[in-house]
Amino acid sequence: MKLVEHADILNAAEAIADVATHTPLIPAAWAGSLWLKPEMLQPIGSFKLRGASAAVAALPDDTRGVVTHSSGNHGRAIAHAAMQRGFACTVVVPDTAPAIKMRAIRDTGARLEVVPPTQRASRAERIRDTEGYALIPFDRHDVIAGQGTVALEILDDMPDTDTIVVPVGGGGLAAGAAVAAKAIAPHARVIGVQPELAADAVDSLRAGELVEWSTEDRYRTIADGVRVGLAELTCAHILRYLDEVVTVSEDEILDAITDIASHAHLVCEPSGALSLAGYQRHGAGWGRTVAVLSGGNIDPQLLSRLLASSTDG
Amino acid sequence: MKLVEHADILNAAEAIADVATHTPLIPAAWAGSLWLKPEMLQPIGSFKLRGASAAVAALPDDTRGVVTHSSGNHGRAIAHAAMQRGFACTVVVPDTAPAIKMRAIRDTGARLEVVPPTQRASRAERIRDTEGYALIPFDRHDVIAGQGTVALEILDDMPDTDTIVVPVGGGGLAAGAAVAAKAIAPHARVIGVQPELAADAVDSLRAGELVEWSTEDRYRTIADGVRVGLAELTCAHILRYLDEVVTVSEDEILDAITDIASHAHLVCEPSGALSLAGYQRHGAGWGRTVAVLSGGNIDPQLLSRLLASSTDG
Repeated sequence: MKLVEHADILNAAEAIADVATHTPLIPAAWAGSLWLKPEMLQPIGSFKLRGASAAVAALPDDTRGVVTHSSGNHGRAIAHAAMQRGFACTVVVPDTAPAIKMRAIRDTGARLEVVPPTQRASRAERIRDTEGYALIPFDRHDVIAGQGTVALEILDDMPDTDTIVVPVGGGGLAAGAAVAAKAIAPHARVIGVQPELAADAVDSLRAGELVEWSTEDRYRTIADGVRVGLAELTCAHILRYLDEVVTVSEDEILDAITDIASHAHLVCEPSGALSLAGYQRHGAGWGRTVAVLSGGNIDPQLLSRLLASSTDG
Repeated sequence: MKLVEHADILNAAEAIADVATHTPLIPAAWAGSLWLKPEMLQPIGSFKLRGASAAVAALPDDTRGVVTHSSGNHGRAIAHAAMQRGFACTVVVPDTAPAIKMRAIRDTGARLEVVPPTQRASRAERIRDTEGYALIPFDRHDVIAGQGTVALEILDDMPDTDTIVVPVGGGGLAAGAAVAAKAIAPHARVIGVQPELAADAVDSLRAGELVEWSTEDRYRTIADGVRVGLAELTCAHILRYLDEVVTVSEDEILDAITDIASHAHLVCEPSGALSLAGYQRHGAGWGRTVAVLSGGNIDPQLLSRLLASSTDG
């Protein structure tokens, strides 16, 4: 299987320079030898803008339109990137997707097709075939390369980083970041974090091959952004390049969200807070660490409840 | 009266480069032709780190210690900057200061002296005289120069900025930013925002001289960071360099906090949200605008209540 290479990530960085924000490293001495990479500051509130923009940038100017399927940030990112280039865009979403995420996609100007979950992929493929649209799922080489630009920025800004910590869901971010880090800074470790309730990457690393968890199992975690499992392509990168995957409990995820709001003044979604939670539980020996906060699209009611029960400021 | 000059701000920028974060410009197309400058991402959660670090950096190595008086972010900023240089530090706080802010100052390692409000300045001066400490109040040239580095960064990152919007309380940020902007980009306008309930800068600009509001009047606003009035020195800069001061209502401030959390994924304190509130009410003709979100030290219970009543995501 052909994997993403360092050169692909450098190309992606150039392609997205005008669209994605170079997020700063925020010192988080309150948590240890830690810096935060706040990807919720991207225009759509998530690192997924990077991969989507890289994939859309690679399309020819005469592209008729773009289609993808997603229930969350990837669909919104593709829609945003497509609109920026003036392409028509259709996002196929399962009818189980939260209304708030559907609205965010529609707000970009993209067309929404709501289907039963089992028809996601087939409907997107049919639109590709009948409309002549380019299909961009999340597990593509150029999407992974785009996500990897996160690590380029981290290692540019702080070359003596010892450890980069990322959430692992579909695995695109972990895959891209690990490829970039191993190429630029072989001394740096890249560690993934998953909820205990959705730990397919832990099992996959142990088995040396993709181990799938059932949808029912994965959907138990509150971290909705990582309920999707690894794909064959992302798993291949993770097996080869990722150093380790650790897990955290649901309570540790919620505590991390509150800490991020109180101490770092950032609004973080549950899956985005996995990296801090992982550092807080396992990071004692990790040295100078950067935790990637991957997104901020949290239900305001959930954040409100967490803040109400916090005693911290 | 000697005013701060462009060269002072360039010197301050060099002095604080290792301490302050160069905050990014965050596109906020959801609000208009607007970018946000998120100063809550500074280590102590406020732009005040800039001025405090600049003033502390200018002290000689054999300084015996640093003293200031403040009930909020300035005291915390001075304490943080002093500790970074290994200086002893005492912060004199009025016994009316919120416990949460006292704790934040104490957490830096600084000594706290709690006094009745009327004794703030005199106690700080006595410590200067008896201990030989350097006294750094907020209305000093090097503090104003440090605050002005915000505008340097904005105009470096986006030279075609038409308007920079800043909250106005003591006036240090408005003063420094206006000096910097007029020197680098004479075409750019710098506009201050105050609560309707604490609008001494509006009256001062109209009168052409410092017009003081009573403490009782100023303390009606929820924006605790701007309850302090202008000082003679900051007012002199504002009269000479600031283009305009506009006002907003208390409800507009609260709505802006919610918008910033929902759309920009940032935790903003009431005074920090003044700039967005000002843009939302008055900004139709302001062109490409940067709103400085000056700080994020909001009571978590207040943010919780605002999010609970929001319908937005």
